[in-house]
Amino acid sequence: MEDFSKWFHNILDEAKIIDSRYPIKGMNVWLANGFKIRKYMLEALRELLDKDHDETLFPLLVPEEELAKEGIHVKGFEEEVYWVTHGGKKKLNEKLAIRPTSETAIYPMFSLWVRSHIDLPIKLYQVVNTFRYETKHTRPLIRVREITTFKEAHTIHATKEEAAKQVEDGIDIYKTIFNKLSIPFLILKRPVWDKFPGANYTMAFDTLFPDGKTLQIGTAHNLGSTFAKTFEIKFENENGEHEYPYQTCYGLSDRVIAAIIAIHGDEKGLVLPPIVAPKQVTIIPIIFKKGSEEVISKAKEIEKNLKNNGFRVNIDDRDLRPGKKFYESELNGTPLRIEIGPRDLENNQFIITRRDNSEKSSFSLDENISSIVERLLNDITTSLKEKGEENLKKRIVGVKSMDIIEKTVLDGNIAQINWCGEESCGKAIEEETNLDILGEYGKYSGDCIHCKKPAKYTALISKTY
Amino acid sequence: MEDFSKWFHNILDEAKIIDSRYPIKGMNVWLANGFKIRKYMLEALRELLDKDHDETLFPLLVPEEELAKEGIHVKGFEEEVYWVTHGGKKKLNEKLAIRPTSETAIYPMFSLWVRSHIDLPIKLYQVVNTFRYETKHTRPLIRVREITTFKEAHTIHATKEEAAKQVEDGIDIYKTIFNKLSIPFLILKRPVWDKFPGANYTMAFDTLFPDGKTLQIGTAHNLGSTFAKTFEIKFENENGEHEYPYQTCYGLSDRVIAAIIAIHGDEKGLVLPPIVAPKQVTIIPIIFKKGSEEVISKAKEIEKNLKNNGFRVNIDDRDLRPGKKFYESELNGTPLRIEIGPRDLENNQFIITRRDNSEKSSFSLDENISSIVERLLNDITTSLKEKGEENLKKRIVGVKSMDIIEKTVLDGNIAQINWCGEESCGKAIEEETNLDILGEYGKYSGDCIHCKKPAKYTALISKTY
Repeated sequence: MEDFSKWFHNILDEAKIIDSRYPIKGMNVWLANGFKIRKYMLEALRELLDKDHDETLFPLLVPEEELAKEGIHVKGFEEEVYWVTHGGKKKLNEKLAIRPTSETAIYPMFSLWVRSHIDLPIKLYQVVNTFRYETKHTRPLIRVREITTFKEAHTIHATKEEAAKQVEDGIDIYKTIFNKLSIPFLILKRPVWDKFPGANYTMAFDTLFPDGKTLQIGTAHNLGSTFAKTFEIKFENENGEHEYPYQTCYGLSDRVIAAIIAIHGDEKGLVLPPIVAPKQVTIIPIIFKKGSEEVISKAKEIEKNLKNNGFRVNIDDRDLRPGKKFYESELNGTPLRIEIGPRDLENNQFIITRRDNSEKSSFSLDENISSIVERLLNDITTSLKEKGEENLKKRIVGVKSMDIIEKTVLDGNIAQINWCGEESCGKAIEEETNLDILGEYGKYSGDCIHCKKPAKYTALISKTY
Repeated sequence: MEDFSKWFHNILDEAKIIDSRYPIKGMNVWLANGFKIRKYMLEALRELLDKDHDETLFPLLVPEEELAKEGIHVKGFEEEVYWVTHGGKKKLNEKLAIRPTSETAIYPMFSLWVRSHIDLPIKLYQVVNTFRYETKHTRPLIRVREITTFKEAHTIHATKEEAAKQVEDGIDIYKTIFNKLSIPFLILKRPVWDKFPGANYTMAFDTLFPDGKTLQIGTAHNLGSTFAKTFEIKFENENGEHEYPYQTCYGLSDRVIAAIIAIHGDEKGLVLPPIVAPKQVTIIPIIFKKGSEEVISKAKEIEKNLKNNGFRVNIDDRDLRPGKKFYESELNGTPLRIEIGPRDLENNQFIITRRDNSEKSSFSLDENISSIVERLLNDITTSLKEKGEENLKKRIVGVKSMDIIEKTVLDGNIAQINWCGEESCGKAIEEETNLDILGEYGKYSGDCIHCKKPAKYTALISKTY
């Protein structure tokens, strides 16, 4: 891919994912096709969360007083909060913040809900839009001012151990969803200066884009009792004593969809993992004057069979050249294309082409078509995943000396270094290379690449979005 | 119901629908149980709309310039728009409105999308939150500052006739959904002074609450070419001429859920139409020391059977008195309760109780339980609907003279009057009675109740929310 940025912009437009011409910069319109990908992604995510989380919905606006309560937290967001100051022609008594994230909307309610240890744990989530007044260059789905799809989970527990375990559970949920979406990922503990404002520690998922930059696609935070203390959330334990509970939160956003598009796509267009594809199979009847009725009728039979088995399938019987239809179905990333023409009928066969690797196979019409489709869709999910993981692995490159970090990364890699773990040293590394330390990763050995003291961690370093 | 307002407030709290203690007045939190009702309502609605509408998602914020373009429209909303004036610590160059509704967010995009007659019609919808700076007394789900569930459809057509037909189609969709929800309704053409700001005419759905007030639960507007002209939306027709297209929009909101709760509920709590009930069936095993294993195992068998047939079912096997469990399942409005105890097992039977009319029936365990449940759930939907419609019909009372309108309405009725249709006369009627004319309804005869000129319409008049 010559110019990823241009490719990404074009594909959003051509495959009708997003229209970025809305009259406010960094706020975009989800078009029908994009909306469907988003919908199926959220369905898969909700299925995982609904097992032991309650879905809820909290207000968009947060009173200034609540937002300001947690000092470190508000500091982290004060440059990028949108403020509502007027209702109609009247100035409001108190400014209202548009949520940049919902801790300060949710935790005042926790302080009303939590009374006793039997109220705990609470595990809830919501899918909402959140806002950041970005001053950097915006880019649809990646860096936006309205994050239209922010899934945030918030949990509260009686013990520190349960909270730590919940962070792991959140990570497991994200591993599962990213695997379903065939998105390769790294899990890192963020350096202290890059953790969520107010958190004890932040675990983050990063993936690698074709242009060599990493994108944070999910985070899980252990909040300890910091917010509980600020928002006066207390519970009576089994011995009748009042204690502060422990909290976690974990979130992901539109960026997951950016990753689906960017990582799997190719020069022909989208390559969608079957789980989110608006159409999983497109049937293209190859019609000549002779025998067209039989072909259409067979195509309809296949469509009905696949529909009844729960697949998202359509027949493209528009009066257009097959080549044009192939082009469109490839552009839209439809995982499987079924062709059937008069000669296929004569031979009692049909042809399936995989979008991901262009592999064509023919099958007998006597076979169980829905099992064939199921198997091929599963194969696509697996092979997209393997391809992605292999590529990511290949591009983590161990680097032993400061002076080649930058070049390694600019070549499209993630550099792996030994690091002492000190904030001052880490920030110096970032400044000298103009790159970001993603966090702790894997085992270490030897001395810190920068200060030469004994290394505490192996850290990854990359150019980030 | 002695005091409806108090009952409504309590039920939202006790059945865990909404928490109204959020620190901004008129903005509320959807709790897990309420969220599920909302979710199932939206699923049913989407199923209808997805047949020929595209679901999309437009930004929350609207530049002041776009909002101000359509003069009549902005006039209708200027007192109640929330304004965003700052991003971080910076004052924005242009104020941004939080959408009170999305015409001014969507139609600038229509002007980019519509070029030719082949681009038409476009039919799209979105489900979003919208905001109104209400100065009147707020009430959860009925009059709020954050409308969390605003389903708005927007369509654009080549001809006036198609647009008029689309208004009818929108009305049909709403009829279908209200029937599924067993909500009785009236469809009226709103008086000119009460139509949507910018519309040619507005058709509205009203329902009657137990306190005798009517609630608007849906509207469909014919916008003509007003917005097309304002937003410079033009298309090239088949003859190569440029024309303004015709638009419609139709919406409904959280108020639908208010109606579900208010109209069907009783002194024991919620009575939910099966389609939106978080649990459609609760199985309560009646356990004594002896024979409890057999009872639990049979309950599990029934649960599994119903689950496999797609019903939302649970077993309440908590260590509580059955009476307490009955109470809770009634409070939560679960349509069917299945009881099974050792004596039932001996008699090879189980007992089902309907929530809506408390009818108990016993059935043999050899019968097909899932068909029984399906039939009873359908019966509940039908009988809730019939009961609601009958009650509404009974409470439309013909009134022949001005001086008894107010008393008729204060007795809990909707008054039906003859009316000349003149704005000045209509407004005089509203002022003298302190009530609202809902609009045209049914056939007319005789003279206007107020000015005594020949009547043009039969109009309904009520106390509105």
